[in-house]
Amino acid sequence: MSKPKAHDLEPVAGNGLLPRRLFLTGGLAGLSLLRAVPLSAQQNVPAWMKAPGAPLRPYGERSAHESSVQRIVGPMPGTTGSGSSRAPLELLEGMITPNALHFERNHSGVPDIPPAQHRLVIHGLVRRPLTFDLEALTRYPLISRIHFIECSGNSTALYAARPTQAGAGVLHGLVSCAEWTGVPLGTLLDEVGVRPEGKWLLAEGADAAAMSRSIPMEKALDDAMIAIYQNGERLRPENGYPMRLLLPGWEGNTNVKWLRRLKVTAGPLMTKDETSKYTDSLSNGTAMQFTFPMGVKSVITSPSGGLQMHGAGLYQISGIAWSGAGRIRRVDVSADGGKTWAPAALSAPVLPKALTRFRMAWRWNGGPAVLMSRAIDETAAVQPTREALLGKRGATYRYHYHALQSWAVSATGDVRNVYV
Amino acid sequence: MSKPKAHDLEPVAGNGLLPRRLFLTGGLAGLSLLRAVPLSAQQNVPAWMKAPGAPLRPYGERSAHESSVQRIVGPMPGTTGSGSSRAPLELLEGMITPNALHFERNHSGVPDIPPAQHRLVIHGLVRRPLTFDLEALTRYPLISRIHFIECSGNSTALYAARPTQAGAGVLHGLVSCAEWTGVPLGTLLDEVGVRPEGKWLLAEGADAAAMSRSIPMEKALDDAMIAIYQNGERLRPENGYPMRLLLPGWEGNTNVKWLRRLKVTAGPLMTKDETSKYTDSLSNGTAMQFTFPMGVKSVITSPSGGLQMHGAGLYQISGIAWSGAGRIRRVDVSADGGKTWAPAALSAPVLPKALTRFRMAWRWNGGPAVLMSRAIDETAAVQPTREALLGKRGATYRYHYHALQSWAVSATGDVRNVYV
Repeated sequence: MSKPKAHDLEPVAGNGLLPRRLFLTGGLAGLSLLRAVPLSAQQNVPAWMKAPGAPLRPYGERSAHESSVQRIVGPMPGTTGSGSSRAPLELLEGMITPNALHFERNHSGVPDIPPAQHRLVIHGLVRRPLTFDLEALTRYPLISRIHFIECSGNSTALYAARPTQAGAGVLHGLVSCAEWTGVPLGTLLDEVGVRPEGKWLLAEGADAAAMSRSIPMEKALDDAMIAIYQNGERLRPENGYPMRLLLPGWEGNTNVKWLRRLKVTAGPLMTKDETSKYTDSLSNGTAMQFTFPMGVKSVITSPSGGLQMHGAGLYQISGIAWSGAGRIRRVDVSADGGKTWAPAALSAPVLPKALTRFRMAWRWNGGPAVLMSRAIDETAAVQPTREALLGKRGATYRYHYHALQSWAVSATGDVRNVYV
Repeated sequence: MSKPKAHDLEPVAGNGLLPRRLFLTGGLAGLSLLRAVPLSAQQNVPAWMKAPGAPLRPYGERSAHESSVQRIVGPMPGTTGSGSSRAPLELLEGMITPNALHFERNHSGVPDIPPAQHRLVIHGLVRRPLTFDLEALTRYPLISRIHFIECSGNSTALYAARPTQAGAGVLHGLVSCAEWTGVPLGTLLDEVGVRPEGKWLLAEGADAAAMSRSIPMEKALDDAMIAIYQNGERLRPENGYPMRLLLPGWEGNTNVKWLRRLKVTAGPLMTKDETSKYTDSLSNGTAMQFTFPMGVKSVITSPSGGLQMHGAGLYQISGIAWSGAGRIRRVDVSADGGKTWAPAALSAPVLPKALTRFRMAWRWNGGPAVLMSRAIDETAAVQPTREALLGKRGATYRYHYHALQSWAVSATGDVRNVYV
C-alpha cells in the first residue's frame, strides 16, 4: 500500500476537507487515526466462544442487537394502510438497500396476493389483448438492473420555511436502491401488438386503492421492466409482490406495485392518483402534470441530523447521490457552507439511475462547520441550491425537492438541519 | 425497440441455441413466445382489492407464499452447529444474494455477539499492538465492493464416480454474492506498523471453534477488508456479525467470520483448520496447502437438476459465473453436450470477483439435450471439463471443484445431473 505523501494531508477545500485520493489508494493509511487503543493484556476468551452457537437456519434473520435499525413508519392519519415507511439512511452503507429496509409508500395497505391467482392483463389499443400469469411471465427472457426508486414526495419537509430538525432518513428516506430482475415491458408490448394510435398506457395496481398512473409509450419501450425479483429473491410484499412496474429514474408511484393491468390508450387517462396529487402546483394557480424524472440529488448521511460528533479529529463524510437522468458524474463536498468545494470519492460501480455512494475525508477542527454535498450527473445537470430551487418554483410545490442539504456541526458536536 | 431480423431466429449453435443479441436488444420481441392467454372477459376484481391491506412495517418480511424458498440446511452428523446451509440457486435471479439466503458454513454454530463487547486485536510482529472496538472501526474510512464468497468445498459431490441427482443449490449452493462495506485491512495494518519480518497473518474467529487461518501479507495489503455491512445493513450473524475478514476471490473459510484477532507472523501457523482440512490431497499421499484462489466457474441454474420443462418451445437458459482471478470475460453455452457452443449475454455490471448473471435463448425441440456452460475470465483462464480436472488432480481431491456442469434434458422434460 502506497504511503500518503505529505501533501495528501493538506486540505483541498475550506474547513478541513482532505484529498479524495486518500480514499482511492486504500484509505487513510499513514494518517494515524488511532481510534484503537493499545493492547494492554492477553485478550480474554469471551463467553460466546465457550459453547457452540446457534444452529443452521433455512432463512436467516439479523442479529437481535440490530433491532433498532428500522424504517421510520409514518401512517397517514384518517386512512387505513396509507402512508410511508422511510429507509433509515444514516444507519445504512453502500449502494444496495436490504429488502427489509427498502422504503414503502402505500395508498391502501399492502395486499396479500396468492401468486398463482394474480393476473396481468394488457389490453386497449392492441391487436391481441393478453392475460399473463406469473408462470407465463417467468418464461420470458429476464434482465437484471440495479436502480433506485424515489418517491416524488421525498424531502418535502425541506420546502418548509424553517428547517425541520430530523435525521437523514426522516427527511430523505423515501429513496432506496435494489437489483431488480424482470421482463422488459417492450417484449410484452410486442406480444400484444400496440396499434399506431397507442401512445400512452394506464398502469393499475391490485391494491384496494387500485393505484393507477398514465405512462407515455416512449418510456415503456425504453427501459421499463415488469420486475419480479428484488435483490435476488421475489419482490417483497410492500414492493409489489408478485410483480411491479419499474420505470428507472421516474417518480416512485409511477412504478406501479401489484401490477394487474396495462391498458394502451391514445392519451393520459387523468386518474385520481395523477390529478388529486402527484402534480406540481404553481404559484399562479395552475399545476404541472407528468413531471416524471427525478432530479439530480445527493445527501450526506454521515454526519447528519441528530448524530453526534466525538471530538475534533479525522472523520469520513459519507453519502448517497443519484439522478433520474443517468449516471452521477461527480459529487462535490463543502465543509464551510458552500464557500469552497472539493470532489468526493465515488464508490464503483457508478451505474445509471442507481444510488452512488460518495465519501470524503475531513479533519474537523472542533469548531462550527456546515457540511453540504452537490451532485452533478452525466447530462451535466447540477443539484441546485435551496434558494435557486424555491426561486424557480415558488411556495406551492410539494414534490420533486432535490436541492442541496446542509448539516451544521456545532462546537459541541451536535448536527442539525440548516438552510444556508 | 428494434424488431429482431429473420436471421436472429437462426440457431447460433447446435440443438436450438439462439443469438444472445436477442437478449441485448430488449428481449425476444417478435418471437411471439405467447406464454400468455387471450383475454376472454372483463378482469374480475380480486378479493384483495376489496379491503385495505396490511399496515406499514418497520422491518419488512417476505410474502408467506415464498416460505418454501429456503437454504438447504446440512448439519454435520455428530457435531453441534457445524455444517452448512446452501443457497437455493435455482430459485434466485440476478447477481445479489439476499442476506437471508446467503450460504453459511459454520464450524461450531453461530455465536451471539453483543457488538459493544466485541474486540479485534492486531498484534504479533507489529510496532504497536492495538485493540479495535466496533465504534473505533467505523471511524476509519469505508469502502464498498460487490464480491462473491465460495466455500472451497462447494460442488464436492461432483467428484463422486456417479452423478448425484440433486438441484443446482444442493450441488453448487455454497456460493453467494453481496455488497460488502468495511475498512481496508491495509489501513489497520498501517496503524499497527507491520515489522519487515511480518509476512503472514493469523486470522481467528470468535466462534466456539476459534476457526483460524493463515493469510499471506500480500493479500492483506492487496484487496482485503474488515467487512461490517452486507447489502447495506450490518452483517448477518451467520456471516460474521459484527465483523469478518473479506478476502475477495479466496476460498470461503479464509474470510474468517466473527474476526477477533489478527496476529502478524513470519510464516503460516498451521492451524487445525488448515491441516486437518482445507488442503488438497494428492494421489501420491501428499497434499497441497494454501491453494487460496477459487477457480473460474459457472453453472446453469435454469433449467437445472430437478426442474421440469413444460413442452417444446422457447426457453431462457440462465446461470451464474464467477472467478477468483477477476472479471468474467465470456460464458459459452452448449445445448448438445459440448459439441457446439455460443456465447451467452452477460448482465451488466460485470464486476471483478463477483457473480455474473448470464442468459441465453434456446428453442427446445422436445428431444434429448445436454446443457452446459463454460466460463472464461479476464486472465483467459477457461473452466475445465470434468475429465480434464479429474485427470489433473487424481481421485483424492475434495476441494476446489470448478469443472463444467452438464444437465441432461430428457424427452419427457425432466432435468438431471450427468457427466459427459
